Amino acid sequence: MTKKNALYCQSGGVTAVINATACGIIETARRHSDKIGTVYGARNGIIGALREELVDTSLESDDNIAALKHTPGGAFGSCRFKLKDLEKQHTEYERLIDVFKAHNIGYLFYNGGGDSSDTAYKISKIAKQMGFPVNCIGVPKTIDNDLPITDTCPGFGTTAKYIAVSMKEASLDVESMCESSTKVFVMEVMGRHAGWIAAAGGLASDTHDEPPQIILFPEIPFEKETFLKRVKYSVENYGYCSIIVSEGVQDKSGKFLADAGTVDAFGHSQLGGVAPVIANMVRDAHGYKYHWAVSDYLQRSARHLASQTDFEQAYAVGESAVKLAIEGRNGVMPIIKRLSDKPYTWEIATAELADMANVEKMLPRDYITEDGFGITQKCRTYMQPLIEGEAYPPYENGLPKYIRLKNTLLDKKLPEFNL
Amino acid sequence: MTKKNALYCQSGGVTAVINATACGIIETARRHSDKIGTVYGARNGIIGALREELVDTSLESDDNIAALKHTPGGAFGSCRFKLKDLEKQHTEYERLIDVFKAHNIGYLFYNGGGDSSDTAYKISKIAKQMGFPVNCIGVPKTIDNDLPITDTCPGFGTTAKYIAVSMKEASLDVESMCESSTKVFVMEVMGRHAGWIAAAGGLASDTHDEPPQIILFPEIPFEKETFLKRVKYSVENYGYCSIIVSEGVQDKSGKFLADAGTVDAFGHSQLGGVAPVIANMVRDAHGYKYHWAVSDYLQRSARHLASQTDFEQAYAVGESAVKLAIEGRNGVMPIIKRLSDKPYTWEIATAELADMANVEKMLPRDYITEDGFGITQKCRTYMQPLIEGEAYPPYENGLPKYIRLKNTLLDKKLPEFNL
Repeated sequence: MTKKNALYCQSGGVTAVINATACGIIETARRHSDKIGTVYGARNGIIGALREELVDTSLESDDNIAALKHTPGGAFGSCRFKLKDLEKQHTEYERLIDVFKAHNIGYLFYNGGGDSSDTAYKISKIAKQMGFPVNCIGVPKTIDNDLPITDTCPGFGTTAKYIAVSMKEASLDVESMCESSTKVFVMEVMGRHAGWIAAAGGLASDTHDEPPQIILFPEIPFEKETFLKRVKYSVENYGYCSIIVSEGVQDKSGKFLADAGTVDAFGHSQLGGVAPVIANMVRDAHGYKYHWAVSDYLQRSARHLASQTDFEQAYAVGESAVKLAIEGRNGVMPIIKRLSDKPYTWEIATAELADMANVEKMLPRDYITEDGFGITQKCRTYMQPLIEGEAYPPYENGLPKYIRLKNTLLDKKLPEFNL
Repeated sequence: MTKKNALYCQSGGVTAVINATACGIIETARRHSDKIGTVYGARNGIIGALREELVDTSLESDDNIAALKHTPGGAFGSCRFKLKDLEKQHTEYERLIDVFKAHNIGYLFYNGGGDSSDTAYKISKIAKQMGFPVNCIGVPKTIDNDLPITDTCPGFGTTAKYIAVSMKEASLDVESMCESSTKVFVMEVMGRHAGWIAAAGGLASDTHDEPPQIILFPEIPFEKETFLKRVKYSVENYGYCSIIVSEGVQDKSGKFLADAGTVDAFGHSQLGGVAPVIANMVRDAHGYKYHWAVSDYLQRSARHLASQTDFEQAYAVGESAVKLAIEGRNGVMPIIKRLSDKPYTWEIATAELADMANVEKMLPRDYITEDGFGITQKCRTYMQPLIEGEAYPPYENGLPKYIRLKNTLLDKKLPEFNL
């Protein structure tokens, strides 16, 4: 059997450490060059695979590949493009197999979240059906931390650390000025349906009396009166109130507080701007001076504040994905298995993509305090290790030294394909 | 002459390194305990001085005072409260002198921006007039970098670094997804009238072609059509467009794009929320998918990303303030004097408060490119050294280890005073 090449796709929203996973894959494949040929990077994810836009990573030096470890964003580009069912989008699946054949690709590493597990799973099935078997390995990634089975998702720990640190710092600012200035500070965080990122803000302090005094989770239906009462209590007792609000907060009827009315390619509502909604609500009810922040992409690209745990896990899933591929596994994903809480120890285990696909892991109810505004000790025990350690990037001229790959595309062998 | 005590006031918006200045003052005073008695911290700035709420810093250990070096926020509390003219608010000035007398205060360290220089200057005059001379030393601080005479203002360098790093990181994220997702990213920054912080975002890259492709300065009247054309050019040529917008951007008639219609205690308009205004404008004109971020207080409290230059200067102005006081100087401020650009060298010089008060230093026109959307080499030469170096705080359990002082108040000796 001739040595097969590998294709690596980044999919969905990128993270601060997804390139550490890319590095884990490419470095490990280079160490096993007897088994795996070249790793090709799909330009802009699955879109590039369909267009036959493949980056030749063999043209990148070892040093540049190593620099991916500390570079945020998606080095090869990512996309929001979901392949539909095999029956509905058969042309696309056939095209992928054509591209695989044309470039002797026998391994697919699909680095993404829940939707991506589904895509990788489908590709593994169709490839077999069409008589060109490809070892499809899903590789976990999502700041949302909503994949099932795995202890956590690479990308989440760094976002969690960023949110906790930012909340701690901004609250010290608010506290110093609250006597005569801002009394309410609202910080919006990502997390469409699951409140993992919002919960991470709770790590900023050890108790409910300290900031954030209020966390608004997507899992807890928003009740205006209870919320406003809590804000007043906090201002009257602590002098100020720091609030974390998830972009996905909904009222009892399931309506997002910040629904922009538009949807993305996956059919998800496009959200944003709930912080000013909450801030105005507080002003109208209590007249407190307020400030609000929306960190948006900053929270998923903050490589300067990466968690060491997250960074190590991101690399490890890449490394293990290659090992699984070499072992001939198909339709699986390397995941994080927790062995102990304190000290936090973990190892890489393997899950079936069929079990990962399209399942969203919500924040358990017992991670949220009974009143719905804070996190429990159980949540802290789970989450604290994930923000542990600082994996700083190198700096030059006062800025992190991030790598930009050459990203040279392979010559195309197939006719154009219109998406 | 009996040994006099000192009063330290934090004033106006706090910074990530104002406590490093506090540390410089207290540590230096402790080293000169033959000349200066106890340093008292005014609780919440000048408000606490008027209320006779004075923190006894002699009750804090050397270790805790040293930990102020890496703790953001205002350790003793700050305020937005401006003393009016001597004639109009004579009662307040008399009260201050009463408090100084009651606690044998002979030195005042007033740590703030332009408004604070004015206050410190007035106090120095009235104290002399009233026969209880106090050595009033202004100590510079403001993320806005808008004080005259000094090369830069402690606090600015760290905010500048935070904005440049955040823009660089978020733009890598946007770039990786722009083929099929977000094409325009808007990040709002502080800076009411002067575009120093907006300009700092320009340090994220070396050229105009790289992000941020557009900076909107408060100094340049906003022209919608020119702006929209530039966005389109950027998206068509680079695939995406990263935009920095100052909260203080105004149209030709001087109207803030994001005027909330309210004013703070200093009579300044309270701004916020120009990022969504800009983002919606782009969507309406071009239909591009967009995201926006408002980092708000995060940008002035980001001690985790402090610039080493800024940190050293913040400590140095505190140290020098005490030396000036001991030398018997009055109505002056230690400032940063640049000696060379490359390598960046500086020393502490002295300016008269009378020359500092109420003067706002705007971003020079030749720091902005001719088209009004970027920064020039002259600006880079000035600004780059200010973000140089990383002064990381210590971490514990994944979070920066920030100090909270005991802040024990002195017993009051005077009757209550109503503000």
